[in-house]
Amino acid sequence: MSLPPPAADLAAQAAAVLQAARRRGWHIATAESVTGGLLCACLTDVPGSSSVVSAGVVAYTDSMKSTLLGLDADAIAEHGVYSEWTAAAMAAAVRLLTGAEVGVATTGVAGPGPDQGVPPGTVHIAVATPDGCATAAEVFAGDREMVRQAAVTCALQLLMRAI
Amino acid sequence: MSLPPPAADLAAQAAAVLQAARRRGWHIATAESVTGGLLCACLTDVPGSSSVVSAGVVAYTDSMKSTLLGLDADAIAEHGVYSEWTAAAMAAAVRLLTGAEVGVATTGVAGPGPDQGVPPGTVHIAVATPDGCATAAEVFAGDREMVRQAAVTCALQLLMRAI
Repeated sequence: MSLPPPAADLAAQAAAVLQAARRRGWHIATAESVTGGLLCACLTDVPGSSSVVSAGVVAYTDSMKSTLLGLDADAIAEHGVYSEWTAAAMAAAVRLLTGAEVGVATTGVAGPGPDQGVPPGTVHIAVATPDGCATAAEVFAGDREMVRQAAVTCALQLLMRAI
Repeated sequence: MSLPPPAADLAAQAAAVLQAARRRGWHIATAESVTGGLLCACLTDVPGSSSVVSAGVVAYTDSMKSTLLGLDADAIAEHGVYSEWTAAAMAAAVRLLTGAEVGVATTGVAGPGPDQGVPPGTVHIAVATPDGCATAAEVFAGDREMVRQAAVTCALQLLMRAI
């Protein structure tokens, strides 16, 4: 169990990610499930973000991961929607869909209860770039809001390392 | 100029919108520009939201409004990206794309500066349902974060009236 970091860090981390991406001439697109738009909201809260963040997709239900991102429903079922595979597939798909150099994805269980036998706080993150795909898996403690903020922080950290 | 309401109201308003949608058996999909994912994040912060909020799209750049939502680029240019027409077209498009009964869209200028001659704080909101399309236009005072939160509040109020 990781303890979620304070939310105040998020704005500074998001600004640093955007600065790093801008330096490489890269654009960022998000594909969110467990964070439900919070990652994209955090990135776009930074003034001038529209020159780096091109788009985001919140594929909140399983079927929307197929409809909006083109993921194969059978493959999601095989690997599990809360898995490294699904996070990586979402990150790759949003890159293709938007043409952004960087795709970042989140999937997991915000809680309060478990889902499909997966405990709340379970989060998988993936960042796909022209250099490859990096992933992270965590089980965060705390309530729904804390889990979502911790997942955003984790995604920003993975973005920072990958960019 | 409207003064943005406090952020603490947002969670209660989002919960009320979800309850109203659940009562009608309706699903909600978001299409955001100026709010950059904040509206979807606010709705999905409510426990159990996944049974009502199916998906969201953040079409942050002009071209993404065409790529992700299928809006005609010439029509956007004709009406202006910060317009009632574009908000209504985004709301209608995300309904079609996701099959949700309710589509809600935001477009505008968060600031800090003006964009394309449109002053910061200018926001257009649209809510499309099986009953038709409702729109709202506001010029909010305050900084970037206040404008975005005020736009989310305005969208939640329009959702509440339309559902």
